[in-house]
Amino acid sequence: MHTLESLQQIIKDNIDKINFDQRPQELYDPINYILDLGGKRLRPALCLLACDMVGGDIIKAIPPAMGIEIFHNFTLLHDDIMDEAPIRRGKPTVHQKWNSNVAILSGDTMMALAYEHIMKAPREVMQEVFSVFNKTAIEVCEGQQYDMNFESQKVVLISDYIEMIRLKTAVLLAGSLKIGAIIGGASNEDADNLYLFGENLGIAFQLKDDLLDAFSDEDKFGKKTGGDILTNKKTFLYLKAFELAQGKIHDTLKEYFQKDFNDPSQKINEVKKLYKELYVDTLTNREIDKYYDDAMVYLDKVNVSGDKKTELLKFANQLKKRDY
Amino acid sequence: MHTLESLQQIIKDNIDKINFDQRPQELYDPINYILDLGGKRLRPALCLLACDMVGGDIIKAIPPAMGIEIFHNFTLLHDDIMDEAPIRRGKPTVHQKWNSNVAILSGDTMMALAYEHIMKAPREVMQEVFSVFNKTAIEVCEGQQYDMNFESQKVVLISDYIEMIRLKTAVLLAGSLKIGAIIGGASNEDADNLYLFGENLGIAFQLKDDLLDAFSDEDKFGKKTGGDILTNKKTFLYLKAFELAQGKIHDTLKEYFQKDFNDPSQKINEVKKLYKELYVDTLTNREIDKYYDDAMVYLDKVNVSGDKKTELLKFANQLKKRDY
Repeated sequence: MHTLESLQQIIKDNIDKINFDQRPQELYDPINYILDLGGKRLRPALCLLACDMVGGDIIKAIPPAMGIEIFHNFTLLHDDIMDEAPIRRGKPTVHQKWNSNVAILSGDTMMALAYEHIMKAPREVMQEVFSVFNKTAIEVCEGQQYDMNFESQKVVLISDYIEMIRLKTAVLLAGSLKIGAIIGGASNEDADNLYLFGENLGIAFQLKDDLLDAFSDEDKFGKKTGGDILTNKKTFLYLKAFELAQGKIHDTLKEYFQKDFNDPSQKINEVKKLYKELYVDTLTNREIDKYYDDAMVYLDKVNVSGDKKTELLKFANQLKKRDY
Repeated sequence: MHTLESLQQIIKDNIDKINFDQRPQELYDPINYILDLGGKRLRPALCLLACDMVGGDIIKAIPPAMGIEIFHNFTLLHDDIMDEAPIRRGKPTVHQKWNSNVAILSGDTMMALAYEHIMKAPREVMQEVFSVFNKTAIEVCEGQQYDMNFESQKVVLISDYIEMIRLKTAVLLAGSLKIGAIIGGASNEDADNLYLFGENLGIAFQLKDDLLDAFSDEDKFGKKTGGDILTNKKTFLYLKAFELAQGKIHDTLKEYFQKDFNDPSQKINEVKKLYKELYVDTLTNREIDKYYDDAMVYLDKVNVSGDKKTELLKFANQLKKRDY
């Protein structure tokens, strides 16, 4: 068995080898740029890991895994336009460095390049790999649309929010594992259980992200906390707080999210105090545990010996325990 | 043999049957909207026609043909954002009716839906169909990027311009024919010759569009002429005129494209007068004939009996003779 780290390294090496020197440069430079920004290459590495754990040859999974990473970076590129994000991994975003038109079109090209790689899956499983990938691609778009809708939508149920993060974040982790499993020759049942493991872990991962955005140790987190609070983002914490708050505390919470604070850190601190009073942090942790436990149930069901699951278990534990 | 009209009707009927009622509505409503705006459905109809003419079963080509039409509409959607176009086929564009973010994301989803249809090609030719389609998709993006580059690029050679319209417009016509031919069981040679027929005809078609934008009969053309002149668009006519103009006439032409006219029709008329003086209209027609003749050479090479070529010949003649 390969370790997850060694598989991430294989993907990194393959990404480093990519250098589109085609013309027009204005189209390909941004693609090279965003692929060079780094990142943990988790999704493609998980694809290889799933292939490996069911006894497959990881070499066969490398091209589709690369397709997944290119697709993931395409979604970041287009999401950054939509969110008007100026910075990605500490560098200017593509639409910021070039312009929105270039970002739209480079993204479109990346999507085609992603399919190019996906279609290099072994012939006998190509159609199945394509189906999983394409369903996932559409769902990721649906998730992003829900996320945008929620900005202006008055009432967002927690169940709506979970469905949004399932689509926007979890299905790509899940799909990556399933594609790796299919290429590795897994049974349908094992491939589906790995998908469900990834889906539940992905939801837990995003909830943890929501929690850390408010309550992490800034030094370890590597960025300022409270960003979601400042932008009134309807995260799990926000929605849970409003679900629980009654009477005066509800009004105060509402007021905090409406009024302008001269000092942004005051807003963050006041909201966090209310979150604590309402036990929102504890309840979020409980929700994370629920999805994490469900993930474990599905991993347990996969018909391979226990030692083959060590790497995925280690990975899941790291995600759960991370405090940054 | 089916007529082109009857094949266009088959595609129209299939497009009418498409109605994405999935959620989120904000994502799927724009897709239904742009697909319902109409259009001649030429590309998918040509795909079926090529399949038919080489003796194939058009039923097998319908899903990939639909994929081509969905892809084509995706490019229109994203191009309209980039060109800030307010109107498409007499109706508000998607980014105008909704907003840019919705237009970006609906377009992305359409691209995935296009692949979904493309991959329904018969299993034995799926990989080949995919390759042609994906190469074409990437080239269309490259063409759009060149088109945007030319807006700010000082020197644009006529050969650069022809390459741009080849990528932006011609390859999708060519690819549609080739995909139909492959599904119909054509030899590689016939499929390639149909591609080259489509490529040359596509270039002729775009040059004719440039010509008609300046010199067509407005009543027949259905829109105001001179739009390209007003927006200083570097069309074949513009580039040819600057290539030929010497001395004073060069300066006058340059001045017309730089100064502000109170009356836009004056600018159009003055530029058209200069175009005529330089024989730009005649020379454009000669260029159209050249590409048209090349297209005919490739059609001639296709190894099917002459009567099977009637529909494509009729179509090519209509394109050449159209004065609107």
